[in-house]
Amino acid sequence: MVDLKAAVRAIPDFPKPGIVFRDVTTLMGDPLAFSETIDLLCDAYKAHEIDQIAGIEARGFVFGAALAHRLGIGFVPVRKKGKLPGDTYSQTYDLEYGQDTLEMHKDALSQGQRVLMIDDLLATGGTALAALDLVEKAGGKVVGAAFVVDLPELGGRKKLEARGLDVLTLIEFEGH
Amino acid sequence: MVDLKAAVRAIPDFPKPGIVFRDVTTLMGDPLAFSETIDLLCDAYKAHEIDQIAGIEARGFVFGAALAHRLGIGFVPVRKKGKLPGDTYSQTYDLEYGQDTLEMHKDALSQGQRVLMIDDLLATGGTALAALDLVEKAGGKVVGAAFVVDLPELGGRKKLEARGLDVLTLIEFEGH
Repeated sequence: MVDLKAAVRAIPDFPKPGIVFRDVTTLMGDPLAFSETIDLLCDAYKAHEIDQIAGIEARGFVFGAALAHRLGIGFVPVRKKGKLPGDTYSQTYDLEYGQDTLEMHKDALSQGQRVLMIDDLLATGGTALAALDLVEKAGGKVVGAAFVVDLPELGGRKKLEARGLDVLTLIEFEGH
Repeated sequence: MVDLKAAVRAIPDFPKPGIVFRDVTTLMGDPLAFSETIDLLCDAYKAHEIDQIAGIEARGFVFGAALAHRLGIGFVPVRKKGKLPGDTYSQTYDLEYGQDTLEMHKDALSQGQRVLMIDDLLATGGTALAALDLVEKAGGKVVGAAFVVDLPELGGRKKLEARGLDVLTLIEFEGH
């Protein structure tokens, strides 16, 4: 068993003083840790008859696409505003300071497709909730949301579970 | 054999009038086409003893991470300026109008690691050349660059080959 937690690097004072950033690029670059991460996600969801992985830009693309390939299913990108070329649904959500907007192609899903959402890190849950709204607008049924890292003190899991979402996280860190 | 070319959607006048954008999100979302794409890349490189995949933000993350997982190796993100939290090498390159900058973590590679660069689309080759410079600065040996889509009229392949790079593209479209 690989120690996934040890494969995540801490970067103090990024993106601003006082924040310890949990950097998963070291986990992605470690062949054993990256492989183990996708193995764990695959084991958790292979019986769930998922049709599509919705990966959240940009680190969610890395874990989501690897998992989609492993499960033999498709990958749908949930992107920042203005990046997708076709007609999109759009969802704005609050950040600590200001707002951000996510988009998904309107025709990315067929009605009723079973979708698993993937991102690298669960903090306040705001991004994941916006992605949930987009998947539902596009006709998908969200069967769960998976994150490599959870920062439980920021309360994201509770917020997602309150929306009825099944949440899986692989490792957690204290603080934020 | 899946028709990968048919799985790529054309979006007229994006990002600006007169440009036909080749949208690979439809290929990613098609389980057979996405799977076939990664199979082809895997077949092409499995004997090359690649150590790391360098994927270029953001669509290169999707194909690159799936291939890295398939090959059982690590994934290194090449990102837009300001996105990576650790110490980075930085490379600025010219766009049609203005400039852009790519970054890679200085410690993303071990000296002499064999690196395959992945992006979704080869146009003028400017982005890939900047990524090549970053991988070399970080101590990697680039063994090739692979793209799902080639727009040969834009001359990217010739530019990369002139730098001694081995280039693989899976499908091509006329125009730009």
